[in-house]
Amino acid sequence: MQPAAARALFATARVARLASVTSDGRPHVVPIVFALQADTIHCAVDHKPKRTQRLRRLANIAGDPRVSVLVDHYDEDWSSLWWVRADGIARIVEPDRPEHEQSVLLLAARYSQYTGRPPAGPAIVIEVARWSGWRGQG
Amino acid sequence: MQPAAARALFATARVARLASVTSDGRPHVVPIVFALQADTIHCAVDHKPKRTQRLRRLANIAGDPRVSVLVDHYDEDWSSLWWVRADGIARIVEPDRPEHEQSVLLLAARYSQYTGRPPAGPAIVIEVARWSGWRGQG
Repeated sequence: MQPAAARALFATARVARLASVTSDGRPHVVPIVFALQADTIHCAVDHKPKRTQRLRRLANIAGDPRVSVLVDHYDEDWSSLWWVRADGIARIVEPDRPEHEQSVLLLAARYSQYTGRPPAGPAIVIEVARWSGWRGQG
Repeated sequence: MQPAAARALFATARVARLASVTSDGRPHVVPIVFALQADTIHCAVDHKPKRTQRLRRLANIAGDPRVSVLVDHYDEDWSSLWWVRADGIARIVEPDRPEHEQSVLLLAARYSQYTGRPPAGPAIVIEVARWSGWRGQG
């Protein structure tokens, strides 16, 4: 799949999975909601994590910013399956930074669920370096 | 979420995502279909990879068997969201090994799509060491 086609398919999804690596080298993966703008993926943590319960995904990215984000479509007709993966570099944007507002606006524009309760925790902003994907012959 | 509840939810899903780590420490994630038996996840590669195009997931597991497998449920009603993660140790079972047949039988019993065209590539068998998960208040 060409990168432009992969990117376009990725943009249609409502949920993705963010994979990162722990400080001791283990893989870690969580679902995320996201907004895509050009080759940048935005997501955010709903609530500001307390220092004592810092989220694993944030600690992982602080230790190693390399991430992989997957979108996939499942169908019992396996000729209709597809997936797209975005490999890139993540950075954490704390709520007190001006850039945080942009991520929140993009997310709120895409998810009405954020209306009245925008994400209050750090944003994760991912610059995608490589789009790849596969789709069935359906 | 208690491990038993997490495991039971995981078992209901038709698709999961397998995260592993590359030899240079990057995260890698792909969708998989799977069968769960007790605390063992079985999946398989459809076709025997040629040596020159050995699949990344197989190379990763050969280098470091630690994997993370995610199942998630998305709903526009965010109070209905849930996800379950299985962290464990993977091993590759080549098609010429007796154990391979068990994985194929379990997969074929769950996915009629494999009828008449069982997976011919290596199986990936994951012993889950930890079940974790989260669900909304819906």
